[in-house]
Amino acid sequence: MSMFNASVPQTRKMLLNLDTCIAAAVTHAETVGFDPDNLFQSRLAPDQFTFGRQIQSACDAAKALAARLSGQTPPSHPDTEKTLGELRARIATVVAYLDTFSEADFEGAADRIVVLPFIPGKGLKGSDYLTEMALPNFSFPATTAYAFLRNNGVQIGKRHFIGSLNLLDV
Amino acid sequence: MSMFNASVPQTRKMLLNLDTCIAAAVTHAETVGFDPDNLFQSRLAPDQFTFGRQIQSACDAAKALAARLSGQTPPSHPDTEKTLGELRARIATVVAYLDTFSEADFEGAADRIVVLPFIPGKGLKGSDYLTEMALPNFSFPATTAYAFLRNNGVQIGKRHFIGSLNLLDV
Repeated sequence: MSMFNASVPQTRKMLLNLDTCIAAAVTHAETVGFDPDNLFQSRLAPDQFTFGRQIQSACDAAKALAARLSGQTPPSHPDTEKTLGELRARIATVVAYLDTFSEADFEGAADRIVVLPFIPGKGLKGSDYLTEMALPNFSFPATTAYAFLRNNGVQIGKRHFIGSLNLLDV
Repeated sequence: MSMFNASVPQTRKMLLNLDTCIAAAVTHAETVGFDPDNLFQSRLAPDQFTFGRQIQSACDAAKALAARLSGQTPPSHPDTEKTLGELRARIATVVAYLDTFSEADFEGAADRIVVLPFIPGKGLKGSDYLTEMALPNFSFPATTAYAFLRNNGVQIGKRHFIGSLNLLDV
């Protein structure tokens, strides 16, 4: 199984799926008649990241996954967004960054030791980093952001979250 | 990268993380003074699966992943649970089922064609099935169930969701 195929194309697709969900949120806001950017601060608990921060976190997780498994330093994207339009632009920036990666960048990724800046002195083997940390750390804020939109009445379903599949005829 | 290591031990761990979250929910209910099983029907939107159904779905997704990638038929678990205790028992049943799998069962899994019963005439290559369908289809209800508990004031954080890591000294 290819580490690259198991990660970058998938997080790229799911960021675009989130973009589709944000577009649906804007349409919903316009239909109901409220400012779409009111959704930016939404959350389900007072000690939880806001919708905006969840999207920023998903972007950062996708970026860090690709960079760390290929031995690169991810670009810095300060969390300055305040509108849904700016969140969509952040997603587009990260998708463009992911587009710079290919299978060749992930050579040796499974055995690469990924140092975790938030756990001093510790790291994870690349394959464990992908499975235990990078993918859950991406899907967690992505799904949470989706849940916030559902809670606010946006008409999206799991098909928007899962997105397109590389189907074969059987 | 091993298809088995990228999936079964991880979904197993995350089911146990969900079990920990449910235990925290029971403690929270007892502290506040309400029936923990009131959480079973919680959701964030009226057209969404309930908390109980999200846990059942996560269990089914973990079970289907392991079975389909090893060419087996998953056991049937009817959705009869009505209490948090019964949901925890369902998790334990699926964890025990996952414990019957090993690396050898996944030989050839990447190239195995997985037929999708809900999309007639279509299937996915095993590696695509894992990345595009099975893992998101597991993490989606797992994260959603977590979000419902957060929305109900249960004191859990992302560390409960991510769980233990196979850390190395660096």
